[in-house]
Amino acid sequence: MTDETKTIACVLFPGVDPLDLIGPMQPLGFLGHVLPGWRTVAVGEQLIAYETDGGPLRLTPSHTFAEVPAPDVLVVPGASTPLFRAMSDRVLTDYVRSAAEHAQIVASVCSGSLLLAAAGLLDGRKATTHWTAFDLLAELGVHPVRARWVEDGRFVTAAGQSAGIDMGLHLVERLGGTDIARLTQYAMEYDPEPPLGRLDWQQAPHEFFDPFVREWVTDGLADNPELAASLLERARAGQALRQSTAQ
Amino acid sequence: MTDETKTIACVLFPGVDPLDLIGPMQPLGFLGHVLPGWRTVAVGEQLIAYETDGGPLRLTPSHTFAEVPAPDVLVVPGASTPLFRAMSDRVLTDYVRSAAEHAQIVASVCSGSLLLAAAGLLDGRKATTHWTAFDLLAELGVHPVRARWVEDGRFVTAAGQSAGIDMGLHLVERLGGTDIARLTQYAMEYDPEPPLGRLDWQQAPHEFFDPFVREWVTDGLADNPELAASLLERARAGQALRQSTAQ
Repeated sequence: MTDETKTIACVLFPGVDPLDLIGPMQPLGFLGHVLPGWRTVAVGEQLIAYETDGGPLRLTPSHTFAEVPAPDVLVVPGASTPLFRAMSDRVLTDYVRSAAEHAQIVASVCSGSLLLAAAGLLDGRKATTHWTAFDLLAELGVHPVRARWVEDGRFVTAAGQSAGIDMGLHLVERLGGTDIARLTQYAMEYDPEPPLGRLDWQQAPHEFFDPFVREWVTDGLADNPELAASLLERARAGQALRQSTAQ
Repeated sequence: MTDETKTIACVLFPGVDPLDLIGPMQPLGFLGHVLPGWRTVAVGEQLIAYETDGGPLRLTPSHTFAEVPAPDVLVVPGASTPLFRAMSDRVLTDYVRSAAEHAQIVASVCSGSLLLAAAGLLDGRKATTHWTAFDLLAELGVHPVRARWVEDGRFVTAAGQSAGIDMGLHLVERLGGTDIARLTQYAMEYDPEPPLGRLDWQQAPHEFFDPFVREWVTDGLADNPELAASLLERARAGQALRQSTAQ
């Protein structure tokens, strides 16, 4: 590593969603191996094994926030309840805010964009998030856009979980060019064949997920009832709108 | 957890590939949350933070091999050099062999099928693996099949890295039915849009990856030069065949 080495930092926090993190980290890690002058690291407040979102695995970062104060690319994954809890984590949000300041690209996956928005980084920008959290993004001052990933200048936000793979490959192309992006896709053998085919967004099971979203907000923002109330109100309004449209 | 709880065990070993592991673990973890009587765990020889394949992250399992001697579903991810090194890891291969004995489903992702094959579990069966390791699978007594995933009775093997997501969703459907599989796909927002489109297998960059495959085998099987030699010979034969076909 030289002084000129550019760093891609993927952020860990307690309860992070594993696929949100690995989705972009896998292609960006490959970039770090084949493109001289780049490295991909995983950063956390401490070098400890962090719990993941309701899962059996724990994840340990390679570097502390303090060791990577000014990455060139910052990637913020999401989670369910733990993401809303992370909004009140001052060490984390201070790091995300200061690390984002000079980063060439600030990216998120899934509800990670809600953390960026809560940190004031997406004011008035276009962004996306997991489809169940769409209404919440609007409440945080963002123009929500339904797309696999959304680019607004140096801010690149991906839709839910697996969308981080597509966004990660896009970032590899943006940073390393098309040839390296294609090589990365072959390395990952990313030639998807969902067994049940594509998703039908007209049939999205909002009624199944809506109660969970309310739980994530309520539990995660127990220390911030004002923000919780405004997010829940927006979620209810979105739900009412969907029901009236469906009738 | 009751005595009747069924267990899906995803195997960790030193140098495991993160996407190989997370790909199936994410959908199978969701199944564990919504289907009563099922749980998904991550198993390793010890409860320590394992290095991953050339990546910055370390992964800690939730259970030891000893704690989950007879899972109902066993999932074995792959890696590059570390997978070949794992073939000489007696504790790991003994666990895989004995855990597989009574498992309802034995699955692998990427080069994980080479570990199953080296453990004698795939003799004469149809299976698949990462496209770069195809010739090696044949050398281990398996009938290699090019497909996103291959099912031969209770053995289900996926192609490279990201194919574990498709296979994982297939396993969710097999274990929990189509409705739960579709719900899982919505939860993961798995509606892929590879930025460069699908892979063109006529243009697969063998010449880029062939030297790496030789390195993985040579370095990983340093303690087993006989097996290394036979795998390398098969890899060379495959390479020669491709070159003669291309001319």
